[in-house]
Amino acid sequence: MSDLAIPAKPHTINPNVSVDCVIFGFNDINLEVLLIERSPGNKHDLLALPGNLIYEDETLDKAANRVLFELTNLENIYLEQVYTFGDPNRIGKLKDIEWLKSIRALPEARVITVAYTSLVKKEMYAPTPSGFARNAIWLPVQDVPQLAFDHNDILRKAQDYLKHKIYIEPVGFELLPEKFTIAQLQRLYEVILDETLDKRNFRRKILKTDFVLPLDEKQTGVAHKPAQLYTFDKKKFHSH
Amino acid sequence: MSDLAIPAKPHTINPNVSVDCVIFGFNDINLEVLLIERSPGNKHDLLALPGNLIYEDETLDKAANRVLFELTNLENIYLEQVYTFGDPNRIGKLKDIEWLKSIRALPEARVITVAYTSLVKKEMYAPTPSGFARNAIWLPVQDVPQLAFDHNDILRKAQDYLKHKIYIEPVGFELLPEKFTIAQLQRLYEVILDETLDKRNFRRKILKTDFVLPLDEKQTGVAHKPAQLYTFDKKKFHSH
Repeated sequence: MSDLAIPAKPHTINPNVSVDCVIFGFNDINLEVLLIERSPGNKHDLLALPGNLIYEDETLDKAANRVLFELTNLENIYLEQVYTFGDPNRIGKLKDIEWLKSIRALPEARVITVAYTSLVKKEMYAPTPSGFARNAIWLPVQDVPQLAFDHNDILRKAQDYLKHKIYIEPVGFELLPEKFTIAQLQRLYEVILDETLDKRNFRRKILKTDFVLPLDEKQTGVAHKPAQLYTFDKKKFHSH
Repeated sequence: MSDLAIPAKPHTINPNVSVDCVIFGFNDINLEVLLIERSPGNKHDLLALPGNLIYEDETLDKAANRVLFELTNLENIYLEQVYTFGDPNRIGKLKDIEWLKSIRALPEARVITVAYTSLVKKEMYAPTPSGFARNAIWLPVQDVPQLAFDHNDILRKAQDYLKHKIYIEPVGFELLPEKFTIAQLQRLYEVILDETLDKRNFRRKILKTDFVLPLDEKQTGVAHKPAQLYTFDKKKFHSH
């Protein structure tokens, strides 16, 4: 008898704990977030963050990666834990309750959810729906409508997490072209911080750091005066 | 029939989710952490962070405050959520399993724990044991031995949280005397960052901020040359 004849032990689902993923995609101009349309559902249903219950035998980190993959086919994304949401009434909207009834054994169970986040270069990832997601879409963060459950709160918390992170360590290495202008870097900081920054101040501060290096090159093919190009010193960048 | 004749509905315990509290106490020189001795237990048992299962009808924040109070009688402490620990094998030590068997209906249930933290002025709080805590003690962080469950990991994560926090916002207003020397403030930063700071650099950076104000006063009753006293500008401090 071959090993293959032994069926894999099915995973037991933990009905009380879920993970939700806030995947931010930077598209050079805007910050977008990955959302799913739920199945069964219709165009009047609420959009949701990709999320689901964890298995009893997996860590929270593994659950986040698995659930993201199962719903959107995205993988190899470095997810960081942001915050855990445990309001006893976080499942209160009628549309959510109806949807849960259609897919879950215990729709009324209290679920505590652990939020994860990542910031990626949008063009590097092409999500496709899978599992109970009937669609996977990117939406600009400022255009996000009312979401399922407490997912608007979770999205806000993940944005705050990103804002805090950018104070502590440089962000952006994987998000910009290898050669970039200070204006491009400033735009990245502006969408993360969700505020307009003073151009001269930003330039002065960034050039004082040791991880942005000027190149002996300028932009080409632009209508305006070509700007100086810069690159990241990878080693110094990652030592921060 | 008076309302008092109606017995309070007992709370249902959620057997899968707990909270653990990392209370740091600053004693002017050192950073200490609040730990409990468990009951039933003996002097060979492991020390633990104050923590317990949540109720089905309370938020995570409320659970953290309740559990801290039930075990140590501390209240009115502002707790912040740090991180959630959910390794399926986080309950693996023999002493922990035996202790759980002695107190819990489902000792083998997987428990996910949400960690909370606070930094307080130690002398302002006098913990006394209660519930299943047979003792509540402060220990210098560097002297903490092997703890119950994954509590050493939780403690480390809470320390990292504090270190990050001090980069983003001023810390210390409630922890120092109203009038303090730069050396006292530096000591606070050093114990939080767990590193020695350069005296001149620290002075220069702190005096550049707008929330530390020099007073027209010096230390009294000291053997060495009396140092200049400072105070916090409460308004500017809290606007950061």
